[in-house]
Parts: sequence; C-alpha cells; structure tokens
Amino acid sequence: MKIAVVGTGAIGSFYGGKLAHEGRDVHFLLRSGIAKIKRSGIRIRGQKENFHVARVQCYETADAIGPCDLVLIALKATNNEALLQLIPPLLHQHTILLTLQNGLGNEDFLAQHFGDDRVMGGLCFICLSRISPGLIEHLDYGHLIIGEFIGSLRARTCAVAREFQQSNVVCQMVDNLMEERWRKLVWNIPFNGLTIAAGGITTEEILREASLHSAALALMNEIIEGAKSCGHNLTGDVAVEHMKRTETMGAYKPSTLLDFEAGRALEVEAIWGEPLRRAQANGAAMPRLEQLYVLLKSLNARRE
Amino acid sequence: MKIAVVGTGAIGSFYGGKLAHEGRDVHFLLRSGIAKIKRSGIRIRGQKENFHVARVQCYETADAIGPCDLVLIALKATNNEALLQLIPPLLHQHTILLTLQNGLGNEDFLAQHFGDDRVMGGLCFICLSRISPGLIEHLDYGHLIIGEFIGSLRARTCAVAREFQQSNVVCQMVDNLMEERWRKLVWNIPFNGLTIAAGGITTEEILREASLHSAALALMNEIIEGAKSCGHNLTGDVAVEHMKRTETMGAYKPSTLLDFEAGRALEVEAIWGEPLRRAQANGAAMPRLEQLYVLLKSLNARRE
Repeated sequence: MKIAVVGTGAIGSFYGGKLAHEGRDVHFLLRSGIAKIKRSGIRIRGQKENFHVARVQCYETADAIGPCDLVLIALKATNNEALLQLIPPLLHQHTILLTLQNGLGNEDFLAQHFGDDRVMGGLCFICLSRISPGLIEHLDYGHLIIGEFIGSLRARTCAVAREFQQSNVVCQMVDNLMEERWRKLVWNIPFNGLTIAAGGITTEEILREASLHSAALALMNEIIEGAKSCGHNLTGDVAVEHMKRTETMGAYKPSTLLDFEAGRALEVEAIWGEPLRRAQANGAAMPRLEQLYVLLKSLNARRE
Repeated sequence: MKIAVVGTGAIGSFYGGKLAHEGRDVHFLLRSGIAKIKRSGIRIRGQKENFHVARVQCYETADAIGPCDLVLIALKATNNEALLQLIPPLLHQHTILLTLQNGLGNEDFLAQHFGDDRVMGGLCFICLSRISPGLIEHLDYGHLIIGEFIGSLRARTCAVAREFQQSNVVCQMVDNLMEERWRKLVWNIPFNGLTIAAGGITTEEILREASLHSAALALMNEIIEGAKSCGHNLTGDVAVEHMKRTETMGAYKPSTLLDFEAGRALEVEAIWGEPLRRAQANGAAMPRLEQLYVLLKSLNARRE
C-alpha cells in the first residue's frame, strides 16, 4: 500500500511513524517544519514507545506525493477546509480516506466532498505531546479502533487493520464506527470540556471534588441519552467504565486543555457542537452539553 | 433613628452616604481606609449622583458605635462569619438588621444568629464602582426594594423606607421579599455567571451572540421554574422584561465579573449555590444552574 499522511502533528507523526519504521511506503505531507524532518527524521520518545525514523519521505504539496491507496487524515478538524485542496491529488479510483480526527462530522465531511465509499474512520486511544516538528513524546496507550463509515466490515477494512497490526499498532475493527465515536465522546465531552471551563484543572481534580465529579457524571449520562437518541445502544456502564479508567490516569491534562493553554484552536464543533446538534435533532434534551458547548465556543473565540 | 453601616464598600458608602448627606445619624464601621475617610469623607461621583459627605462618623470597632436602631449590612456575603462578632455590640432590644447583600441565605443567616424578628432585606438596583475607600463612582440606577423577612409589612417597614425616601433614595416596600430576590436572580444568575464563565465578556456580547443569548434565556427559564418550585409565582414575562432592560445597558460588566477580574472572591453560594439547593430540595431539575455553579465554584477556588 502506498500511504499518505495529511497533517504531521502528534497523531500523524506517531501512526505514520510506526508504519514507516516498519518499512511501509509512507509519504508525509507537511505545512511547516519540513526542513527539520528531512534533516532529523521523526523521533518518538517515551517509556513504552521509543523509535526513530531517520529517512522520512516528506513533501510540501500533495501533487508531489500523487495518488495513494490509503490517506491518513490527522489534521485538526478546524482545518478541514484545507482538505478540499490537499486530498484530490492523492486520489485514484480506490483510494481509502481514513480520518483519525476527533469527534463527529469528519467522516461526513469527507464523504460529502469525496464520496461515501472512500471513507473510513479511526479512533486513537493515545496520550501524545508534540515537542517540535518530528519530535513527539509518547505518554501512554496507543491502540486504534477503525471501521467503515458506510456499511459493515469488508476486505479493505482488514487490509488497513493489517497494515497497522504489522507495524506493531494494536488495531481493532468495529462494525459500528459511530457507536464507538459516541462511546469515546462520553469521556471526551465532560473531561476535555470541564478541565477547560473550570479554569484549567486536571482530570484528578474533577474526580476529587464532589460537585465536579457529579457534574461530569451528569454530563456523561446526558451524552449516553444523546447517543441512544441517535440509535446507539450505550448504557450507564460506559460512564462507570470511563470513571474507573480515569482514576488510573493521575493528574492528566487532556490534549484540548494543553491546546487551550497554548492558545491553539479547540475542535469545538467536532467534540461538542456536532454531538449536541445530532442529539437535539433526535429530540434529546441536552441542557448540560448545550451550556458547556456555548461556554467553550465563547472561550475559544476570545483567544483566536 | 441611630443607624450603623457594616461594610463600607460601594453599597455601604452609597446608601449610608445618602442617609448621612441628608443629615441622618449614620455610623460607619470600617475595617480599612478609616484614616482616609476621616480626612476626606465619602464622595459619590457620577452624572446622576454627585455629592460629598465631609464629616463621616467612622469607627474601627462595633463597640465604639454601640446600640443602634437600624443596621445596614453591606459586607460581601463571603464574609458573613465576621458578623457574629460585629453585630452584637450594635443591638438593643428592637434593633433592625437590614441586609443589602446579594442572593439567597443572608436573611436566614441573620435570623439564625440574631432572631427572626430583627431581620429585613433590601435589594439594591444600582451600578457602582468603588475607586478607593470613600470614593465611589455611580454609574446608573439606585433604587431599593425592601421587605420583611418574616410576615408582612408593618410600621417599622414604613419607617425604614421613609428614612431612605427622605434621603432621596427611591425605596419601594414589598410584601414578598423572597419572590423579589428570585426575580432579581433570574437576571443575576445568567448574566453575572455567564459573563465570567464565558471568559470575561459583557452583557452585550451575550445578547449579540445567538447561542449565548439562547443559553442565557434557557437559564432564566430554569430559574423561573426553580422559583415556582419554592412557591414564588414568577412567569416567563420576567425573562422577557430582564432581556429588554439588558438591551439598554450597553457593554456592561456586572460587578461580579469586575470582582473576578480583580481577583476578589465571588459570592458563589449566595447567588448560585443557595438558589440551586432550594430549587433542587423542592424537586426542580436545574441542570444548567448546577453546571454553572460547579464551574464558577471551581473558577473562584482556583483564584483564592
């Protein structure tokens, strides 16, 4: 498979780096930092993941890459408009577009502009921190869940999963991608949101302070109801599991909080706005999510 | 009437100053700035209110004032514990305690410690800004609504109102003080809260941005339901009236936002916590208020 990586931030560098390190034919599209990556390659450092891709095929334009079999999309969702220019030169008749972006709406965006049938989605369960172009700190986790946007698993789903698995990435396939996205949002919506809106606190502070803990749980249950309204069969157990896992995280700052503190744009629509709109369109009352979305949108807008 | 003013910030200086300027026997209790006020008096400046009280009777201790007929309480509610020491020396058998503080719970606190029968409450509709001890900028409004904590209007209610009226303060008496407090909270809870939680914005920005406007209105309607659950007969008209009045305010920053920006403590419990607890105790669902309260409590705690 000829593979392109669009967006060489933390996620693109890590998963693209894993594939390249195991000898796959990976082509990185970069907007900045290309000279440094050409010179020094991609380095992932951490206790569980520590490797260096010395020779990285990297490019300033999509035309220079040309048609690929698989395109990993790892841009911030706030930059999706740029894909309208970046994707077409990468397409042949059967090119697969796999979005590794957060939240809801990214598969739809790709489907709308490049056709339903090309689109797959992946959820990244990983804690990374980008130090500089090509230098990524790996903090924890790393597995992927991938699935088809339309229809159920097919031969190409397995082929894509195998690319990752053969590159030492734990990669699971699921039949219902959107249900997995909602399951992940049950964590992301409260924890990414409240850590920002409550003034820059860690997940540990949310668990420790009774009223924050209860606000997080109430949000989780609201999102589970929102998911149900959209036809996804999540139960209250999802909240319980997420809470248990969060207890093992220590004083963790979600990537969106780090983005916010660094003055970078938040993916407000993908993580909070789109789930809200979908649940409300299906008649779910989402008072907590609505208020949190409005506050985050305002906080985000004031820093742009 | 011998009158004491406990808490000589913006509210205490203004209303105490009005009374003193018209020749009433007013005694100000101060924790700081006493030398400056002894030297320069109290000056209120603004387009509609502009006066100077040159000779101010001011004191460092309540013992030095001694028993009074009326005590105006204008401390921040966050300092209520201090009243346990400050009030007793000011009491005789019939001393009236009139709290001019914000939100819910202040009358109850006074009643619990000094007896139901002494307690009256007042709502201040005024925009002030304290420049320094004794120097207050008057921005707009100024009328008072006062009432009894227990029972209906009586002779002393009229006597207190008359003190203000004869000092050129528009002062209205109401039969149901708590209903007026809730009516005022229908504005204070969303506008004081959202201007802070949305990142330090003005009332104008809330009105202008559709999703903030809708979040404010949803909160207002939730508070009206909360008030109803507590037996106060507010209708949706209250929200409509508040919105109309807010349109005339321009780019206004509520006093709590100014407090927050200046690093001063917020009256989180009086304005958000106590209304929430009362409405929830009566079975009202208050998801928006609960989340806003939790966020403000966290924002406030991180700055103390």
